[in-house]
Amino acid sequence: MIKKIDHLGIAVKNLDEVVNYYEKALGLKCEKREEVASQKVRVAFFSVGEVHIELLEPTDPESPIAKFLEKNPNGGIHHVAFGTDNIEAQLQQAAAAGCKLIHEKPFEGAANKLVAFLHPKSTYGVLTEFCMPKNNGGGGCCCSSH
Amino acid sequence: MIKKIDHLGIAVKNLDEVVNYYEKALGLKCEKREEVASQKVRVAFFSVGEVHIELLEPTDPESPIAKFLEKNPNGGIHHVAFGTDNIEAQLQQAAAAGCKLIHEKPFEGAANKLVAFLHPKSTYGVLTEFCMPKNNGGGGCCCSSH
Repeated sequence: MIKKIDHLGIAVKNLDEVVNYYEKALGLKCEKREEVASQKVRVAFFSVGEVHIELLEPTDPESPIAKFLEKNPNGGIHHVAFGTDNIEAQLQQAAAAGCKLIHEKPFEGAANKLVAFLHPKSTYGVLTEFCMPKNNGGGGCCCSSH
Repeated sequence: MIKKIDHLGIAVKNLDEVVNYYEKALGLKCEKREEVASQKVRVAFFSVGEVHIELLEPTDPESPIAKFLEKNPNGGIHHVAFGTDNIEAQLQQAAAAGCKLIHEKPFEGAANKLVAFLHPKSTYGVLTEFCMPKNNGGGGCCCSSH
């Protein structure tokens, strides 16, 4: 079952510049930065209530974020991640409803989470991720994983 | 101060079809529908944890959502609304940081909320709304307003 929105992934060209905007103009605080080599991105994390904001800057032209920025040069929201307490069941439910899956099985993403994406053609233009802590204790979501 | 993400506004071509997707494929429950004449949209509301999802279907070609759909024919995330406990101070902070405001003063939006938007050219491609319950008791946000 979906418990919450775990995070919003936001594509940015220049991480330092946009971190500064989120801190100065919105008053949010950057909690962590890391580089995720497998996704070819540098990431800055913010918390807003129970939701994380992940600013994603590509480190390589082949990064999916770089391709998004080619189409959206100002940046923008790249994906929405729903935190679930059972990622396998969530994928089965989506598939049974006719949804095309990018990943039929969840895989290990950043921060010790299991993740999987739905195809945006099936999700009315919103690139949609399901995620769950790898050692899910039944609490439902990914709060402790960032 | 920003307390949470109050809602995500998602542009859709066909409200009934996309409500069905959110219910069947994601297992979420549509809680309310309404037509907002001033914005020329029909809206369906879902709750996901502390965040609302608002699906927005234009009722007129002049609706801002209709214009968004011209550029994004599959639909997509139109805006992010941050719930604040002091919308005037939030706007002042953004302006002082160099952010361009669409609305210098908050106005009354749907569901008895005060709302104001920042210009997406100042917000790195993310159309950003601030919102606050009209009779803010200091509790910080808009949970009771939908």
